[in-house]
Amino acid sequence: MLSFTLTHRSGQARAGRITTSRGEIETPVFMPVGTLATVKAMIPPELEELGSSIILGNTYHLHLRPGEGLIRRLGGLHRFMNWPRPILTDSGGFQVFSLSHMMKLTEEGVAFNSFVDGSPRLLSPESAMAIQQALGSDIMMCLDELAPLPATRDRVAESVARTTRWAERCKQAHLQALDRAGASPHIAGSLPADAIPPESLLAQSLFAIVQGGSEPDLRAESAGQLIHLGFDGYALGGLAVGEPPEEMHATVQAAAGLLPDNQPRYLMGVGEPLDILTAVEAGMDMFDCVIPTRKARHGNLYTSRGMLSLRQGRYREDPRPIDPDCGCMVCQNYSRAYLRHLNFCREITGVRLLTHHNLYFYLNMMKQVRGAIREGKFAEFKKDFLAKYSQGQTEVSK
Amino acid sequence: MLSFTLTHRSGQARAGRITTSRGEIETPVFMPVGTLATVKAMIPPELEELGSSIILGNTYHLHLRPGEGLIRRLGGLHRFMNWPRPILTDSGGFQVFSLSHMMKLTEEGVAFNSFVDGSPRLLSPESAMAIQQALGSDIMMCLDELAPLPATRDRVAESVARTTRWAERCKQAHLQALDRAGASPHIAGSLPADAIPPESLLAQSLFAIVQGGSEPDLRAESAGQLIHLGFDGYALGGLAVGEPPEEMHATVQAAAGLLPDNQPRYLMGVGEPLDILTAVEAGMDMFDCVIPTRKARHGNLYTSRGMLSLRQGRYREDPRPIDPDCGCMVCQNYSRAYLRHLNFCREITGVRLLTHHNLYFYLNMMKQVRGAIREGKFAEFKKDFLAKYSQGQTEVSK
Repeated sequence: MLSFTLTHRSGQARAGRITTSRGEIETPVFMPVGTLATVKAMIPPELEELGSSIILGNTYHLHLRPGEGLIRRLGGLHRFMNWPRPILTDSGGFQVFSLSHMMKLTEEGVAFNSFVDGSPRLLSPESAMAIQQALGSDIMMCLDELAPLPATRDRVAESVARTTRWAERCKQAHLQALDRAGASPHIAGSLPADAIPPESLLAQSLFAIVQGGSEPDLRAESAGQLIHLGFDGYALGGLAVGEPPEEMHATVQAAAGLLPDNQPRYLMGVGEPLDILTAVEAGMDMFDCVIPTRKARHGNLYTSRGMLSLRQGRYREDPRPIDPDCGCMVCQNYSRAYLRHLNFCREITGVRLLTHHNLYFYLNMMKQVRGAIREGKFAEFKKDFLAKYSQGQTEVSK
Repeated sequence: MLSFTLTHRSGQARAGRITTSRGEIETPVFMPVGTLATVKAMIPPELEELGSSIILGNTYHLHLRPGEGLIRRLGGLHRFMNWPRPILTDSGGFQVFSLSHMMKLTEEGVAFNSFVDGSPRLLSPESAMAIQQALGSDIMMCLDELAPLPATRDRVAESVARTTRWAERCKQAHLQALDRAGASPHIAGSLPADAIPPESLLAQSLFAIVQGGSEPDLRAESAGQLIHLGFDGYALGGLAVGEPPEEMHATVQAAAGLLPDNQPRYLMGVGEPLDILTAVEAGMDMFDCVIPTRKARHGNLYTSRGMLSLRQGRYREDPRPIDPDCGCMVCQNYSRAYLRHLNFCREITGVRLLTHHNLYFYLNMMKQVRGAIREGKFAEFKKDFLAKYSQGQTEVSK
């Protein structure tokens, strides 16, 4: 199980260290998303070189392809994809609620059909735990319920209550697995060859997810109930699902302080640099988002002066790097003109290089964030960062 | 201009060294194909790590996208793609003849329409040279004519004659450029900023292409005429265009000996390991082919025991590397099951890893080829290599 140490504060912003059996994670941390047992276009040594200390895997996607049974028999997700550092897996709930057309919700769980072969599946608190146990992730997430949007206050309250009941069932399933794992060294000889190694199960932590939409009192109710049950960390879910950024920022601002000070706080699926810096300021520690990798594939690049879209004709013969102030391998070696050409021709090498750059930007931003908090200057850093970030691309001639 | 030193012989097979201003190339050599200023899915440091001493660029594709003018203004192809080692560019003729639907051949050249924007283009001996000079490749190829297949003997004879006339025009255009480059240091101050650097032009070599189909006497006629004109190296063209492998092997066997002993001999667009080993045995030195990179993208992998298709269901849970006898980064770190999953899900990371493996296989095979020739044991090496290669995948249970 993980341990968390808070080392510095700067206002509400916190810097700390999560210790797991697979290594340490300095917080605040950004987790690149490795949906299908790979961060798209990257390989593990490159992610390590970029300074990524933890990545995220998607339970829903891995359950459907290649299936958690196969991954377990191949030694678990870390060995399968050859990533030695920590992995956090989500519960699969968000994907079922947002991607499935034929989804049916009951107290038992969510029934849906596999988009791969049409077969019926049930994602329940117990199966979400079983899948994540088979994957062998370091941090598992409870199955939560996301009310279909737009939702009435009553419907949001209902999802808060169900999320708590499901979190309780997740915790039970987790504790039972820990019990079995704790007992199993004694019966190791009788374990089937493809069983989950007990040491892997014993290393797993479980986070709960606070729901409640944009209603402060429902967020407080959700957080209170989950904290009462007790988990290794807490996440804010159901955000960045279409609400205006200001509303999201206000919810995070209000909800962060509801979470225990001495445990990791994770803001799920968020977001743009402004969203992350605002959430760090509110006291959040962990972040994940597909946008840096997804935007890279479309030629949209993060720079210290804001977004740069390589599709624009003005970069056709531009010999400059994506961001003259960036220290990444791509900016050291390739011009906008070359990268635009690769993107225009849909060359895989282009996706690879642009993904590298965007992940460097995010991971480097988080490194600067941690440095600023340690120096007690986070507010100043945020102001300077955003002032430069909002400048836009300079129009200096080549 | 390049120089070539023959260092060892083993039967007709030769080992040697091509020296260029951008580094040495040990022969026999395989040149990965970098069609659009990138070897698909690879980046230059990875190619260097794989031991690639020279790559190929496609004049036709680069002329259409992004255009040789842009590449020249960005500092030439090497700088554009950040590849410091030698580059060979083809003439573009093969692509125009094989890819263009609205192609019109005259003595002047080949008129065709750009598939990108429909604009009319003319590929002539002079424009083929001008494009390759703008790209700044280390080895340029003469524009040759490939008779539409199937071709009568008369039609092949016609293409031989035109290929000679075009080669003469290519040589003239090359010599004129060298003259201008030789003179230009004196007038450097008056050169436009985007001119081709004289030192780059002076470093370029020019190879001619022997045509003649499968007719031994026409091949001899073509080779004789081109050698009489005099070039820095000679290639066999118009092979592996649909004829049976035995016919191709016989043509190479007969034609290799027609080429000067003290100059590089290049077999264009070939091929499978058997084709390459057979051509090395006949005395050929240089090879290029898209198949290792193209097959990788479709999950077809080269191994010491022949091809392995990852699409096959039997590899679904196979924990073994692609080739247990392979020393590449992919075989050291990833299972067939994982790579099959990535290929099945069309993950870019899969293309990247499988391309790496197939290029390692080819480049490592050539390294072994050179070692065997140096030891005077090429025939023995070839026999052993092909005996193992024809075994097929072993069916040993996991």
